[in-house]
Amino acid sequence: MDRIPILKMGEFLLVTIQVDLYDRLALTLESDLMNMVSRTEAKGVLIDISSVSIVDSFMGRILGNIASMSKIMDAETVVVGMQPAVAITLVELGLTLSGVHTALDVEMGMELLRNKIGPKPNEEEDLYDDII
Amino acid sequence: MDRIPILKMGEFLLVTIQVDLYDRLALTLESDLMNMVSRTEAKGVLIDISSVSIVDSFMGRILGNIASMSKIMDAETVVVGMQPAVAITLVELGLTLSGVHTALDVEMGMELLRNKIGPKPNEEEDLYDDII
Repeated sequence: MDRIPILKMGEFLLVTIQVDLYDRLALTLESDLMNMVSRTEAKGVLIDISSVSIVDSFMGRILGNIASMSKIMDAETVVVGMQPAVAITLVELGLTLSGVHTALDVEMGMELLRNKIGPKPNEEEDLYDDII
Repeated sequence: MDRIPILKMGEFLLVTIQVDLYDRLALTLESDLMNMVSRTEAKGVLIDISSVSIVDSFMGRILGNIASMSKIMDAETVVVGMQPAVAITLVELGLTLSGVHTALDVEMGMELLRNKIGPKPNEEEDLYDDII
């Protein structure tokens, strides 16, 4: 396992984390993701962690890092599918994932992203066309 | 790693295979997927294998099985993101993945599925409304 695949879905990127994130894999993910945001001009990043059952401070830090980096690249980050036990552990560890948005599943995450980034520029144009 | 997560995206299901599929994991994936198709009434299944670099006859058989099972449950299966080397190996192994549709990436796979399943029932109604 060299790298975690990043899937482009319209204007969003989707990453499903299924394996333990060790140092090098996490760094590769960060750089791959930022390259992909830059190349595809993605407006949002969805990180699915539904199969992550054990979380530690490293994982929490990586999620925070990705959110901060994406923000600088003008993309919002939403973490989806967190298991209840993981949420409990995160708070008990004192990690509140500040700056990271969360949603229960991918569909809700996409909805959240769509609301955050607002209508697309050409949709806005259509809006003006209608008014004129 | 107990099970591979299945993500619901509208009327499609998305599975990203990132780890080696051993017997039990493959069986769990098959049953999870069929339960999910039944529960969500999904019309299509997308299987992303972009991070699979080594393929064997077992993997080929599993993909074929999933496609056949989905077909019975009235859902189409599209395998996306296959690496060129994997395609070469599959043919050299004599596995032509019959019954499995393929596409280069998730977006193209979704497009293919949308074309295959045709317009949604309520879209058809809209169509009639327009005509009337």
